[in-house]
Amino acid sequence: MILFDGAMGTMLQQAGLPAGACPEAWCLVKPELVTAVHKKYVDSGATVIETNTFGASRPKLAHYGLADSVKEICFAAVRAAREACQPNTRIAGSVGPTGQLLQPLGELAFEDAYQAFAEQISALDEAGVDYILIETIIDIQEMRAALLAAKAVSKKPVICQLTFEKDGRTVTGTDPQTAAVILDKLGADIIGANCSLGPSQLVSVVEAMSAITQKPIIVQPNAGMPELENGKTHYHMSPDEFAGWIPKLAAAGATYFGGCCGTTPEHIRAARYIIDNLQTSTKNWPQLVKAVVLASRSQRVYIGKDFPTAIIGERINPTGRKAMAAELQAGKFQAVKREALLQIQAGATVLDINMGVAGIDQAPLMRRAVEQLAVMTKVPLAIDTTDPAALEAGLRAFPGRALVNSVSAEPERIEAFLPIAKKYGAAVLCLPLTPGGVPATAAERVAIIRQIIAAATGAGLTENDLLLDALALTVAADSQAALETLHTLTAYRENFGLPSVMGLSNVSFGLPRRDLLNGAFCAMALAAGLDAPILNPYDPLMKDLLAASAVLLGKDQHAKKYSSSYVHSTAAVATTTDKPTQLPITPALQKTDTPDVLETI
Amino acid sequence: MILFDGAMGTMLQQAGLPAGACPEAWCLVKPELVTAVHKKYVDSGATVIETNTFGASRPKLAHYGLADSVKEICFAAVRAAREACQPNTRIAGSVGPTGQLLQPLGELAFEDAYQAFAEQISALDEAGVDYILIETIIDIQEMRAALLAAKAVSKKPVICQLTFEKDGRTVTGTDPQTAAVILDKLGADIIGANCSLGPSQLVSVVEAMSAITQKPIIVQPNAGMPELENGKTHYHMSPDEFAGWIPKLAAAGATYFGGCCGTTPEHIRAARYIIDNLQTSTKNWPQLVKAVVLASRSQRVYIGKDFPTAIIGERINPTGRKAMAAELQAGKFQAVKREALLQIQAGATVLDINMGVAGIDQAPLMRRAVEQLAVMTKVPLAIDTTDPAALEAGLRAFPGRALVNSVSAEPERIEAFLPIAKKYGAAVLCLPLTPGGVPATAAERVAIIRQIIAAATGAGLTENDLLLDALALTVAADSQAALETLHTLTAYRENFGLPSVMGLSNVSFGLPRRDLLNGAFCAMALAAGLDAPILNPYDPLMKDLLAASAVLLGKDQHAKKYSSSYVHSTAAVATTTDKPTQLPITPALQKTDTPDVLETI
Ligand SMILES: [Zn+2]
Ligand SMILES: [Zn+2]
Ligand SMILES: [Zn+2]
Repeated sequence: MILFDGAMGTMLQQAGLPAGACPEAWCLVKPELVTAVHKKYVDSGATVIETNTFGASRPKLAHYGLADSVKEICFAAVRAAREACQPNTRIAGSVGPTGQLLQPLGELAFEDAYQAFAEQISALDEAGVDYILIETIIDIQEMRAALLAAKAVSKKPVICQLTFEKDGRTVTGTDPQTAAVILDKLGADIIGANCSLGPSQLVSVVEAMSAITQKPIIVQPNAGMPELENGKTHYHMSPDEFAGWIPKLAAAGATYFGGCCGTTPEHIRAARYIIDNLQTSTKNWPQLVKAVVLASRSQRVYIGKDFPTAIIGERINPTGRKAMAAELQAGKFQAVKREALLQIQAGATVLDINMGVAGIDQAPLMRRAVEQLAVMTKVPLAIDTTDPAALEAGLRAFPGRALVNSVSAEPERIEAFLPIAKKYGAAVLCLPLTPGGVPATAAERVAIIRQIIAAATGAGLTENDLLLDALALTVAADSQAALETLHTLTAYRENFGLPSVMGLSNVSFGLPRRDLLNGAFCAMALAAGLDAPILNPYDPLMKDLLAASAVLLGKDQHAKKYSSSYVHSTAAVATTTDKPTQLPITPALQKTDTPDVLETI
Repeated sequence: MILFDGAMGTMLQQAGLPAGACPEAWCLVKPELVTAVHKKYVDSGATVIETNTFGASRPKLAHYGLADSVKEICFAAVRAAREACQPNTRIAGSVGPTGQLLQPLGELAFEDAYQAFAEQISALDEAGVDYILIETIIDIQEMRAALLAAKAVSKKPVICQLTFEKDGRTVTGTDPQTAAVILDKLGADIIGANCSLGPSQLVSVVEAMSAITQKPIIVQPNAGMPELENGKTHYHMSPDEFAGWIPKLAAAGATYFGGCCGTTPEHIRAARYIIDNLQTSTKNWPQLVKAVVLASRSQRVYIGKDFPTAIIGERINPTGRKAMAAELQAGKFQAVKREALLQIQAGATVLDINMGVAGIDQAPLMRRAVEQLAVMTKVPLAIDTTDPAALEAGLRAFPGRALVNSVSAEPERIEAFLPIAKKYGAAVLCLPLTPGGVPATAAERVAIIRQIIAAATGAGLTENDLLLDALALTVAADSQAALETLHTLTAYRENFGLPSVMGLSNVSFGLPRRDLLNGAFCAMALAAGLDAPILNPYDPLMKDLLAASAVLLGKDQHAKKYSSSYVHSTAAVATTTDKPTQLPITPALQKTDTPDVLETI
């Protein structure tokens, strides 16, 4: 276990920093006192010390009139830290939050946050830190801005530490597992938590994260839970009690440890003693399952044969829908939001977003749609576009792990889309199309998918990032079309074992009562291995058949959900309309219980 | 090509038999004149001559007060024929119709017809004929009585010749292919047609029969179509014209030829000349397909992957239905008949008949139900019972080819049911149950089915007689039950390639909205290879999903049926009830166009 240091701010106050003063300024004005704190931690046994740059970003320093001193302070901070180093000491460049909520929750634009982080991290990198340590972040979207910036300006390992509340989520609603998914895929090298809670409360956070990612886990607790006394926050946990939690945290999966608020060199010394006497135990790596996990800010959706069928709502698409297209042309998103909420109410667990309006630049439209949906709903999104700029805008704006819809074997998709997917840690829907056209047989589709998988892994994606589309064609044009698609699903499972996805509604194009064809095809496809249908979730028959299929395919144990949904239904006669009529407003930030899935990404 | 003789009656009339006299009586009183006719045919080149016993059955002879002379006349007739034989001449013992329609179309009880035929055929057999020739039969049920009697009392090859009308069917509605299926399976050795029509009209009859059976085909036309002159029937086709049809009949598949009304030794001599100069051509044996064919009196239902899904209606079953049970206890069949007609109107192509009423002897109930349904409907029946006596009663009474529901691996089923199925030429539903209970896995079911197939082929059945049941269990009791059944269907197809069958409704037992579960399960099972679901055809959702599944599985080319059914349907909202309200009376005897299926049994 690697030991980081403890609190800096309180140590500086003890050394004379006035309350309300800028701690980072001391790097310039009293670097020897900063070095002195670092030395105490090094002497206590810390092998990684954190620079005094927690607030050394342009927006934070602006409060003290030091906006233009970011680089100067960062360089001074690293120098002050280096003065304290022993040969085995490493320096982590601390990067704290901007102190503002990002749009649309707050006022700060994502790109402004990104620029601030890029400036600070660039300076720290140039000054020679060994790690970039993004810490005490309460909003996953701010963390994404910082992490993307770090990846853009530095090649140093990046540590991402979020801060959780008593309910186990960040202030803006992200649980540890969801955070770990998003950050792992986005390229964080070490993932963890710091501040807010004491070590006992962070055991479950560490457990949750280490169950879902193979990245190392770091934990830097406060010295117990904060207690308010006479308007001031105090931390009362003794060094021995504090360090006494280390074995439990190690058992939960942490391999990096340090202290946050209220911790002192004594706490770190006690930790050093415990760590040196710790039975070396290797982390139990979570078992890799063949599933793709998508995430919103606040929940995950697993797509794979051992998970409930994921329902991808297809309705946010202006193609052939004049009213929605006209609204989007006018820069309005009422229809989009309405469709989002109604689809979720009708059972969609993922929303597909297509912004293809003739004559309009898709990218800004996609960005705004994603921003608004991300704050209004809790489901992951699929960015449905053929425009690389719109794809990047959507993925960048989404505070979770989105799905790229889609990457075919066409060179422009392979070359432009796969690097973007990799950069944003997105999952990819692989569509077996070539420049030559649409492959008719399952065997041809398998061959094309094999090409796409090779290109995707070449671009740095893993198999667990990929969903395979079985390609539903129109049965009115070819009587064998649906059968071939079902064979394709079987062939995918046999050849790849990766989860599958498919838009259903093509199959019924040009025929009456499309709901019957779509519904029957859905049941058949689910039985043949389809994991994530893309469909119109309002269709009452589809809803009914999805519920029944879940029972039949063993995805609704003891038919519990089914029985409770239909207990008062009368039989057979008519599937009367239960069209959604109300808008249930369940904003993304509302806390929910995500079922614990002890699987990994 | 084997050449039979020509007409006997007209020849005897020329020899002095008075109109209205009993021709068969001349075997006793003027045997030398009978022998003289036979001699002329033998001299003309016939190698098989037919005894003068067409009407030598008890009911026919009773018209002349000769009811008790059956045996005496038959023996005399065979003697008279033998007198005319050359070394290579064979004798066919002619057996004509009783002259009465069987119950319930007419007055004659099946068992009385059977006894009459058994008496006559037994006499002919004992007298030493080479073939039993059952001829000029206009009702398939009378033919069945005769054939069953022949098989019971004689080991001689049995020739079955039906008589067809201009519309290509027998008077009671049986087409040549359906007749060939029923008679082939019931054990006829040579199958064909005689009388009624001239040779040109019988070409298509021969073609139809030879396309569906591998048994040899016989054809004995009249000398042209009958013409009525002054109240008497005349036949005008010349010997050369008559014989000129032989190459066409041979090409159509006939390998036995002879003459009926209006033919003379000259016709046979002309035939001999043509046959001797015929290019020897072997019959093109029809390709065997892996399909089970069931038949009613008037149509066939093919069950297999290249045919439309067979819909087996499950509603004729008093289990748990108090009203129907009470009626049956009172010997009434109103509810049974109503359910039959409604199910057919709702799309059933086969009807399952279960007569399991507590405290009532099933066999007579089954017989009466089958008799009444057979005359009222045109669909094949499945005899659903665990009682061997009821099984035999049902199969015996049904004027077609029924399905035995079911034969498990339980010894009492194997030992009692398989010989009965073989005797009546029925198809068999193989159910993978053992005395040990219900097998949970697909692999176990495959192993049990393998045992049943071995026992069935041991009992003289062929693989094309067998339907495999995949065993739908209750998903409420076991979440994996439906999945395992779907795997079983796949495993059956891989291991056996035989058609499959399955009752669906078990799957949803104990859960609400069973229509949803049954419907989704049906679509899944059809896609996994189910050929014949047993279901409640009134269920409107099931009906819809069956229609949609047919399109999706390539069984409704160009979605023709689907489109015409749903062209005026509006989409999605609600599957409004289209419950059957009228009783469409389509009696079995009404002529229908059966689509030509050029496949064999
Ligand atoms: Zn803290
Ligand atoms: Zn005739
Ligand atoms: Zn005439």
